[in-house]
Amino acid sequence: MNSNQSIACCPPLLEGRLTSNDASYLASIFRVLGEPARLQILSLIAAQPNQEVCTCELVETLGLAQPTVSHHLKVSYEAGLLNKERRGTWIYYRILPEKLAMLRDALA
Amino acid sequence: MNSNQSIACCPPLLEGRLTSNDASYLASIFRVLGEPARLQILSLIAAQPNQEVCTCELVETLGLAQPTVSHHLKVSYEAGLLNKERRGTWIYYRILPEKLAMLRDALA
Repeated sequence: MNSNQSIACCPPLLEGRLTSNDASYLASIFRVLGEPARLQILSLIAAQPNQEVCTCELVETLGLAQPTVSHHLKVSYEAGLLNKERRGTWIYYRILPEKLAMLRDALA
Repeated sequence: MNSNQSIACCPPLLEGRLTSNDASYLASIFRVLGEPARLQILSLIAAQPNQEVCTCELVETLGLAQPTVSHHLKVSYEAGLLNKERRGTWIYYRILPEKLAMLRDALA
């Protein structure tokens, strides 16, 4: 669990010249967002009353195959966009708003 | 020139379920940002005193080949991230901050 972690990356895009390292890091997260199904998964998670879902719910709602959904969740988790927690059989995913805030800051 | 154009896209990611069309559109722009050299070009343009550059200056500063720089500029322009204006031999590029603002709104 790292939902309270403070995330900083780079100077805002319009205010300073990005270093090569910062650009690579930022680009890697934008690539994760560059896939419509992943954006839909993120918005679907956020739209839940308790702001979390288990894979089971996503598969049913999105009409995608379980391995596809699992892959998108794994990629999003590894990019730090999602947090996960196992409860019994299922893993529950939750958005890490700090990461989205970091991206918003980087696009300023 | 469309720098005064108002740009709207979709509900903020955390506030509504994205439609398939909105997700495809947003993802296409994030893919453009998912390339380190393009992010560096954007930050370099923004860092100029007059906030614009011609291709000639970018080639020298970035140390990339002219066709590579031209390709990245073309892709960024087609995604609506840049505006361009021909003056004599050279084309000058300028950032369209409205597009970045739209992305920030979408990530809220």
